[in-house]
Amino acid sequence: MTNAATPAVDIAALRARHPEHFRMATALRVLTLDAVAAANSGHSGMPMGMADVATVLFSKHLRYDAADPAWPDRDRFVLSAGHGSMLLYGLLHLTGVKDVPIEELRNFRQLGARTAGHPEYGHCPGVETTTGPLGQGLANAVGMAIAERSLAARFGRAVDHRTWVIAGDGCLMEGVSQEAITLAGHLRLDRLIVLFDDNGVSIDGPLSIADSTDQRARFASAGWNVLDVDGHDPDAVDAAMTEAKKADRPTMIACRTRIGLGAPTKEGTAPAHGAITDKAEIAGARAAYGWEHGPFEIPADVAKLWAAAGGRGASLRAEWLTRIAALSERKRAEFERCMAGEPPARLASVVRALKKTLSAEGKAVATRAASQTALNAINPVMPETLGGSADLTGSNNTRSGDMSVFTAEHHAGRYIHYGIREHGMAAAMNGMAAHGGVAPYGGTFLVFADYSRPAIRLSALMGLRVVHVLTHDSIGLGEDGPTHQPVEQVAMLRATPNLMVFRPADSVETAEAWELALSSTRTPSALALTRQNLPLLRTTHTSKNLVAQGAYVIAESVAKRRVVLMATGSEVEIAMGAKALLEAEGIGARVVSMPCWELFEAQPEAYRKRVLPRGPVRVGVEAAMRQGWDRWLCGEGGDARKTGFVGMEGFGASAPYKELYAHFGITAEAVASKAKSLL
Amino acid sequence: MTNAATPAVDIAALRARHPEHFRMATALRVLTLDAVAAANSGHSGMPMGMADVATVLFSKHLRYDAADPAWPDRDRFVLSAGHGSMLLYGLLHLTGVKDVPIEELRNFRQLGARTAGHPEYGHCPGVETTTGPLGQGLANAVGMAIAERSLAARFGRAVDHRTWVIAGDGCLMEGVSQEAITLAGHLRLDRLIVLFDDNGVSIDGPLSIADSTDQRARFASAGWNVLDVDGHDPDAVDAAMTEAKKADRPTMIACRTRIGLGAPTKEGTAPAHGAITDKAEIAGARAAYGWEHGPFEIPADVAKLWAAAGGRGASLRAEWLTRIAALSERKRAEFERCMAGEPPARLASVVRALKKTLSAEGKAVATRAASQTALNAINPVMPETLGGSADLTGSNNTRSGDMSVFTAEHHAGRYIHYGIREHGMAAAMNGMAAHGGVAPYGGTFLVFADYSRPAIRLSALMGLRVVHVLTHDSIGLGEDGPTHQPVEQVAMLRATPNLMVFRPADSVETAEAWELALSSTRTPSALALTRQNLPLLRTTHTSKNLVAQGAYVIAESVAKRRVVLMATGSEVEIAMGAKALLEAEGIGARVVSMPCWELFEAQPEAYRKRVLPRGPVRVGVEAAMRQGWDRWLCGEGGDARKTGFVGMEGFGASAPYKELYAHFGITAEAVASKAKSLL
Repeated sequence: MTNAATPAVDIAALRARHPEHFRMATALRVLTLDAVAAANSGHSGMPMGMADVATVLFSKHLRYDAADPAWPDRDRFVLSAGHGSMLLYGLLHLTGVKDVPIEELRNFRQLGARTAGHPEYGHCPGVETTTGPLGQGLANAVGMAIAERSLAARFGRAVDHRTWVIAGDGCLMEGVSQEAITLAGHLRLDRLIVLFDDNGVSIDGPLSIADSTDQRARFASAGWNVLDVDGHDPDAVDAAMTEAKKADRPTMIACRTRIGLGAPTKEGTAPAHGAITDKAEIAGARAAYGWEHGPFEIPADVAKLWAAAGGRGASLRAEWLTRIAALSERKRAEFERCMAGEPPARLASVVRALKKTLSAEGKAVATRAASQTALNAINPVMPETLGGSADLTGSNNTRSGDMSVFTAEHHAGRYIHYGIREHGMAAAMNGMAAHGGVAPYGGTFLVFADYSRPAIRLSALMGLRVVHVLTHDSIGLGEDGPTHQPVEQVAMLRATPNLMVFRPADSVETAEAWELALSSTRTPSALALTRQNLPLLRTTHTSKNLVAQGAYVIAESVAKRRVVLMATGSEVEIAMGAKALLEAEGIGARVVSMPCWELFEAQPEAYRKRVLPRGPVRVGVEAAMRQGWDRWLCGEGGDARKTGFVGMEGFGASAPYKELYAHFGITAEAVASKAKSLL
Repeated sequence: MTNAATPAVDIAALRARHPEHFRMATALRVLTLDAVAAANSGHSGMPMGMADVATVLFSKHLRYDAADPAWPDRDRFVLSAGHGSMLLYGLLHLTGVKDVPIEELRNFRQLGARTAGHPEYGHCPGVETTTGPLGQGLANAVGMAIAERSLAARFGRAVDHRTWVIAGDGCLMEGVSQEAITLAGHLRLDRLIVLFDDNGVSIDGPLSIADSTDQRARFASAGWNVLDVDGHDPDAVDAAMTEAKKADRPTMIACRTRIGLGAPTKEGTAPAHGAITDKAEIAGARAAYGWEHGPFEIPADVAKLWAAAGGRGASLRAEWLTRIAALSERKRAEFERCMAGEPPARLASVVRALKKTLSAEGKAVATRAASQTALNAINPVMPETLGGSADLTGSNNTRSGDMSVFTAEHHAGRYIHYGIREHGMAAAMNGMAAHGGVAPYGGTFLVFADYSRPAIRLSALMGLRVVHVLTHDSIGLGEDGPTHQPVEQVAMLRATPNLMVFRPADSVETAEAWELALSSTRTPSALALTRQNLPLLRTTHTSKNLVAQGAYVIAESVAKRRVVLMATGSEVEIAMGAKALLEAEGIGARVVSMPCWELFEAQPEAYRKRVLPRGPVRVGVEAAMRQGWDRWLCGEGGDARKTGFVGMEGFGASAPYKELYAHFGITAEAVASKAKSLL
């Protein structure tokens, strides 16, 4: 059966058959019409089409208590089709969430309102994840369902809930949805239920102009349970939800709906997707619904029905409180720590001890291997980490010795074989972090941050503790060539607000970066790590985390300081080599390691000035494009006439890496020579 | 039927049954072993597993002439699983491509060799597209198949060929593959045949640890013809290919193979994926094949068989030459112009005429609308353009009045409804451009360049004429909020080598940008366009294309010049407002419009100095992150102490756009005030 819009619906019959349900659903529809009209923008069609399904979900199935929409054991509800945000805001308001009063709906899409154009996590209570970029919510939900099972394995029946998703054709056309769906099917995430708004319409017209996919067969090919209902028949929807809850696999319920149901001329057509603002159209819809109340006016009978739906979860929550109370005090404290996203107290001491050992041993290793060493130390004391890799486990070095694999049968596993699904992995990690209780990290090559880019951005926008482990971080990966050699990815990541980009220079900096990444509750991190070995530079142990300052003097000039060499990651070694060459000629050179620009930017100006004093020649060294470097070279007290950069000017090439560094002129000699030319 | 590795294969029996075929395939296998051993890196398993399928393809089905591997009407062969590059290099060498002698195979993965780690378009003859980032080749192939049908609609039987793809599990797990597969199924691209290397193994282990997808059912759900064969049975493969060529839909042939066939301990296992360099393993494989020749040694009988395969296409090419000769001279010249990627002679005059009209009319319009106006003028004289949008046609303004829609039934259509498939669209456009003969452009919102990012990078790496139309390019999109408001995407695009990023300030600059984008044969372009209206600034017509200089003085100071204001796109209007405020106070301010940094960078230094003279205060204005701006503010003769930037410092917000500009302080007043504070 291919997707097609349901035939026209007899609204009067619906109303007659299920009067209470119909009035509840109508409240969602008219609030959408009213808010979109007030804002003169927004998306009317989806909420109007999916109001029946959402009403059944919130009044009969969702573990939800409007009195505490952040209750840990609630069901997660993800509006993956985030443009239909008024559906969610309507639900939150009508069920009685305190911070979503009618004024917020009147202020839909206005500056400062919680009711942003698309639902924003952390901005409006009850919003489980930021959606709008299509497909993301569905992929987040997969992560939520994993997090739930992982926590259930740790905390038993203190964690026992489901994740529900509303997704549209747009979500399902995006490639990330395939990654999410196949991962969920493979892991048999039976707590995940997707309500597909099968309305057969997209922005450009009927769906048939752009897609002919049999979505039911597609989900089935990924191992899902697939159900099919008339999305305007509350009994059928109710029965399907009941059945889905019993399945041993994730379920997709295809809900055949009419986009913009009730809009006299737009129902069932593409123009219903966006803002319905025409007065006659709105009045016509109200008439079709038999709704005789003014804008934003909810009659008492409807308010009462919705309040009852919002209060349904109170007893569930109370019951859960008894379950939580049954945990040992230690277990309960641990649960609360994890849900709060606080790192364990022992993290700092474990990292300190590791650093001491590393400094003493002085081994040259790749930072990707150093990362594994850090994880081997950290993971045993931080049982909430959920690691993984997009089919590059041996290359990303992401699996620590203590980690077993999370599978359909073994939810206590803490390592996920994400498969070749970088985007799905990053989006699932966002869902895990938004769910709470777990600390996800996942690996791929840095260049493939391109694939996960939309989800990385959302982790930054949401302020989630997600760690992107990005190895093979330059031409240093060698023979695989330019398709696999990042040159602009570090700049891309640094351009993203609220993302910490670490590029550590040795094992010690790598351990410090991990400590910071896992301690950061509101900021995701990207760790750029090498394939090739790097010498240990931090030979003197410091208990202080120097990476926390973002940049610091790693080697002071011996002769009179005339040069400051600034570098990150693998190029700090090169800067150290250049320093030796310069000092041999009596030219004093300071080396500044800059593992995290964002943290350096956040330091007091006085500290930044101490690290980068006015006067000396400055040379930046990074095996990447220059973009962004002028902030530190010419800005921050620098002088454009006395600055230089040694790095990449274009794409890389395929060859052994040492030859590439020579070929592209990223060598100690080149750096020293550049510095001298500026003196 | 789910994917699973084929059971162990009886190599001796294969050899006995098909002795000639077996020796041909073995040559591919041993060349792989030899080259990987010489390089001490690479990927052995895929070529060893798919050698039989590739041998059948090249010796019996592919329209291919090694004497002219770039012959326009050849079948396209795409190695989507690009890590198996030795398979392709082996095929090119053995069939006799002149520029791929045995020395190139000996130099596999070495600096300067054509035989890069992954196949690189433009670097090695016979490589149709750069692959390695998984899923891309498959999505490129969809574009090639579209280009072929589009050209066939224009030029009749002068264009009549197929596109063949080898794709692995990695390609099929990537989300972009779903976008490609569903688009191909929807468009019923019967000239597209995918050979799925169904070996049941990925890097981390057996595929079953990460995926349980029924790929056959999945392709069927997208409307494909699905066949299934033993990938080591040449007769079965041959029969399937014959059947696929008759289908009225795209065909996926699942070829059950053994990764690393013949490797004594690695065959059929994950360690076969990478480099097999162990001497005993290599010797064991040679023994299993009964191959008694030295490394890189091809016996005469095998060389002869392969030479015959390489020469198979000579008669097809000769026959095609008669078909081309049958075209009218005008038609043939037009075909050759299009295949060469040359814009029509009339492009320049059409743009000039349009600019004249625009300057005279002086209308305020959004640059996205200006883009449509430009397309309305250009498309009628440039019949090779293939436009489209990822379900945002009315927002991206990408469909010009003369364009009908390309559908399964109507290949003369020049507009593609890509659906909500940004990544698949961008990758398909790469395939179209690599195929040649067409000039693809496609639209989405700028923020969703994140989704198409991996394909945008590849367009830059390959040097393809692809135009990414990216509208709604800032907080100026307003109410949709931060998920939809780009702040770092322009920086991300500018960081990418060999990509021209245009952010035009008005209708005239937009027309000029289009002319440059379509005239650029080796560089893709991104056009960042506004949702909101902008005044016409270029009120005086110039026949010269000023955007070609990258940046230019759009308004000279009246009073003594003490300030230079630099801006792009919608913020040039704001800079003009600031200039008026400053001049009113007697402070002379020049306004520099900087629509394309890459082109400005390419100007002679003397020109750059004329535009950005040393001395005055510099203020940059762009509703985006500052990253990259210091190149122009502090660098290029600037002085960090006398520079400022007015733009975004983080993510946007949801509100009407004028309020957002005020909220984030991107106003003429703020710019003037910043400039004054620096005087």
